Amino acid sequence: MNENYTVGDYLLDRLAQIGIQHLFGVPGDYNLHFLDHVISHPEVTWVGCANELNAAYAADGYARCRPAAALLTTFGVGELSAINGIAGSYAEFLPVIHIAVAPSLASQRNGELLHHTLGDGDFSHFFHMAAEVTAAQASLTVENAATEIDRVIREALSQHKPVYLFLPLDVAAAPVGAQPHPLTLPEPLCSDDSLQAFITAATAMLSKANTVSLLADFLAQRMGVAEQLQHWIDNTPFPHATLLMGKGTLNEQHRNFTGTYSGGGSDEAIRAHIEDADVIISVGVRYTDTITTGFSHQIACEKNIDIQPTLARVGSQVFPSIPMSDAIAALENITATLASRWDHRTITAPALPQSEQKDTLNQCEFWQQIQHFLRPGDILVTDQGTSCFGAATLRLPKDCQFIVQSLWGSIGYSLPAAFGAQIAEPNRRVVLLIGDGSLQLTVQELGSIIRDRLNMVIVVMNNEGYTVERAIHGPEQRYNDIAAWNWTQLPAALGANENEILCEQVCSPTALAQTLKQVNAESRLSLIEVVLPKMDIPALLHTITQSLETRNTVQ
Amino acid sequence: MNENYTVGDYLLDRLAQIGIQHLFGVPGDYNLHFLDHVISHPEVTWVGCANELNAAYAADGYARCRPAAALLTTFGVGELSAINGIAGSYAEFLPVIHIAVAPSLASQRNGELLHHTLGDGDFSHFFHMAAEVTAAQASLTVENAATEIDRVIREALSQHKPVYLFLPLDVAAAPVGAQPHPLTLPEPLCSDDSLQAFITAATAMLSKANTVSLLADFLAQRMGVAEQLQHWIDNTPFPHATLLMGKGTLNEQHRNFTGTYSGGGSDEAIRAHIEDADVIISVGVRYTDTITTGFSHQIACEKNIDIQPTLARVGSQVFPSIPMSDAIAALENITATLASRWDHRTITAPALPQSEQKDTLNQCEFWQQIQHFLRPGDILVTDQGTSCFGAATLRLPKDCQFIVQSLWGSIGYSLPAAFGAQIAEPNRRVVLLIGDGSLQLTVQELGSIIRDRLNMVIVVMNNEGYTVERAIHGPEQRYNDIAAWNWTQLPAALGANENEILCEQVCSPTALAQTLKQVNAESRLSLIEVVLPKMDIPALLHTITQSLETRNTVQ
Repeated sequence: MNENYTVGDYLLDRLAQIGIQHLFGVPGDYNLHFLDHVISHPEVTWVGCANELNAAYAADGYARCRPAAALLTTFGVGELSAINGIAGSYAEFLPVIHIAVAPSLASQRNGELLHHTLGDGDFSHFFHMAAEVTAAQASLTVENAATEIDRVIREALSQHKPVYLFLPLDVAAAPVGAQPHPLTLPEPLCSDDSLQAFITAATAMLSKANTVSLLADFLAQRMGVAEQLQHWIDNTPFPHATLLMGKGTLNEQHRNFTGTYSGGGSDEAIRAHIEDADVIISVGVRYTDTITTGFSHQIACEKNIDIQPTLARVGSQVFPSIPMSDAIAALENITATLASRWDHRTITAPALPQSEQKDTLNQCEFWQQIQHFLRPGDILVTDQGTSCFGAATLRLPKDCQFIVQSLWGSIGYSLPAAFGAQIAEPNRRVVLLIGDGSLQLTVQELGSIIRDRLNMVIVVMNNEGYTVERAIHGPEQRYNDIAAWNWTQLPAALGANENEILCEQVCSPTALAQTLKQVNAESRLSLIEVVLPKMDIPALLHTITQSLETRNTVQ
Repeated sequence: MNENYTVGDYLLDRLAQIGIQHLFGVPGDYNLHFLDHVISHPEVTWVGCANELNAAYAADGYARCRPAAALLTTFGVGELSAINGIAGSYAEFLPVIHIAVAPSLASQRNGELLHHTLGDGDFSHFFHMAAEVTAAQASLTVENAATEIDRVIREALSQHKPVYLFLPLDVAAAPVGAQPHPLTLPEPLCSDDSLQAFITAATAMLSKANTVSLLADFLAQRMGVAEQLQHWIDNTPFPHATLLMGKGTLNEQHRNFTGTYSGGGSDEAIRAHIEDADVIISVGVRYTDTITTGFSHQIACEKNIDIQPTLARVGSQVFPSIPMSDAIAALENITATLASRWDHRTITAPALPQSEQKDTLNQCEFWQQIQHFLRPGDILVTDQGTSCFGAATLRLPKDCQFIVQSLWGSIGYSLPAAFGAQIAEPNRRVVLLIGDGSLQLTVQELGSIIRDRLNMVIVVMNNEGYTVERAIHGPEQRYNDIAAWNWTQLPAALGANENEILCEQVCSPTALAQTLKQVNAESRLSLIEVVLPKMDIPALLHTITQSLETRNTVQ
């Protein structure tokens, strides 16, 4: 046994082996020794973040581009700062491996009155808290380390959820027997009987349908079936859409792509294409409040074939133990057989609204220009506010990825998530559309972006505060105001040299067009502050916020 | 019953009635309606913070100056962002009332797929998490609201701990019967028998002692006995000290005040005065690792009289059910009776070390100048790093308050905590000494300080990264570097007008002296960046970090 090969090394080798090349986090005195091993690891790079919540968001963003992500914090203070980010990864199905380095087992056994504890000698509080928002947890010892690391990481990958490793510093430093073998994931259970019954029921429903529509959402992307789904849909004439959380899962340049479906808040053409079909096939869809305009979707159960990660449904009949990819393969066969039933036709996706005041920089004009600015392959990151509901109306260029955290909806998420995505995809362009209110919550990560010389495009939509909250309630209330910052002065304060960054404030359509042209011509870090009218919001956001306000108002 | 008087109003009236005049927090769509009631409340002022963790830290700082503090967040995302701050308040005995406004009871009953949930229909996850770091919790309904609000707030005040109120938005808006009556707190239990036995034992021990020392710590301050303690000690000749967490509890200008006791890391004179006495009386002391130089204190049990919040100990004999103030009153009587045993003498407290290089701005020189800069009544806030261990050697002017979070030790705490303290004490000067590494974690709150035109003094000790971590381990490791910011450009970026703020970078002793003089002459918001050598650390910090590293190194 190599005395110098430690539990920490095993863990890092395991991370590298499953495709994690970066470890996000913040140093703390309990994790410094382990960090030495990170720094000297040939395949895992340390990405120090400005604080732990930001690090968790960055890891989440990374996990949207890679098979998984990892986060390192210190016991107590560090892990609790990060826990909101981990909860977001749980809600939205992202495998983030959270490693919390703890005091030694001896200190724990003795109930020592250590810093970063609650002072009560109980070292298990934070483990219990992590258990509420992770799919699996392990309290590592020298004896169980290799087995438990593997078990927990296997759960992360197969459940697509965050997991928690509680790693006492002496365990991290203890020798371990051998390097990790390749990790085998259990094959998803597939019941042949159930699949056959599903095929029979789906065939019966589809063979009577004159029109079929397809609605995909984020779980299709998370389960890794986006390509398979696209391949199938390419060979059908079905109009199709995604919900906002799943935007980017399908090729939006496809002739039958209708746009982003938002329940009753959808553009009428999109709504009709999806809801009025004789059969609606939904893949990986969760109908959450904000993306369905307050549950106003009308997807009648009796004409719906619904595909979930491990089961399928036809009408009211549920077919258990069918992995998503098997269900899609079955539907591809069925629709190929029935292909002659359906005519090919081309959908005209709704056009972006045109601004009526040509010399005013308003939301309408802004989204028109962003539509033309985006390039194939871009990663577009938006916040759960004005920016994502505006972006819902964009037609993404080919191979664009779209990142939004609609279900968890934690304000401040998007800047660090964009940072994580750019670390994961150094050769793609990350474009972040972020509100001024949102940017304040996690602004320090801009310092890390500057430090790492990442050529991201950051568009700050300055509308003087929490416009999305104003739209819901209290448009002129003081609580929706924020401190007024001078955005274009910020990069220099956070360490950027003038020649490293393109930094502009734009107030007119012409200035925005010129600046976006310049951004496309050069390729360096850009921060564009776009001054927008305080109460101007995208039409979709207006509809959605009204539905939320109605739900929040006690009758 | 007044239909317009709601549960929310009752809660706000209750907060005002126990002395809370400010509510810290961040708006979110579930809490906007409740916020309308906050804004219109005549006695409670809304203090919007840049993010929820900062708001929790600010509330903690406020609670160190007022009877209690209150924090408002939204369900899920908001409350989890704040939870590290709440855990710190728990560890360090601060009554912070955390109100998390949740979706309506009907939405919860229906298990709706709402934003800010984990998407599993279970609305109780965050309640369970809060229960690990709060002393009492309540899930409010229309029926139990008044009773439960009172119960939980009573626990906060009597246990000096944070509590959690889970407030569905429809419950907040529901009418409630009546305004709150004055809140009665249970008298702390005092057993006469136990007290008499304690008096007998303490008298026996003290009547044989030729020398007596007194050591106070933070729990004396939290239990509200600081004044009583000072009054007693003023009438004795006992040398006395505090530990770092309790610094400021005693009058440091007193002739028998020896300095800050740090176990084996103490200045030898301080150590001898405290440890070598025949009897050591300790009041409200918790021996945590960082403030005792790794548990190197030598307070022999057999010569120790220890006073805790609800019990006392003489040697190895424990006397339960004695409130701290009763024990102090008893000791005051005993020592008055025995007064003739002890001579009055004046202690010479250790002088601050003098810098040997007169034209270099190093730690030595810095602390010399800060010592002269401080004024009676200042509130000095420091970070758990270079700044607090340097400040340990200061002799505070009269009526100064000292704020540090030594036990929980969450980096980034001090800026928002200083903000909260300044809101609580608008007529005192808050002086914040903060490291550059620490300031990055929570920097956005500087925007709130600028917005609210608070005339604080912020001294940024720029030593290029996490110097406290370098001192523990990895002095030249990349993980202890941080992004290099231009600190003096930051206030303008965060909205400060040039004439509102004094903003200077100083690199020499003369420049520091001139700038501090200017700060004292004007009274406006000041941000002074003091450039200090990267590896220069206060002597006490060196001793302490070496002890921590030894404990973290696996043998």
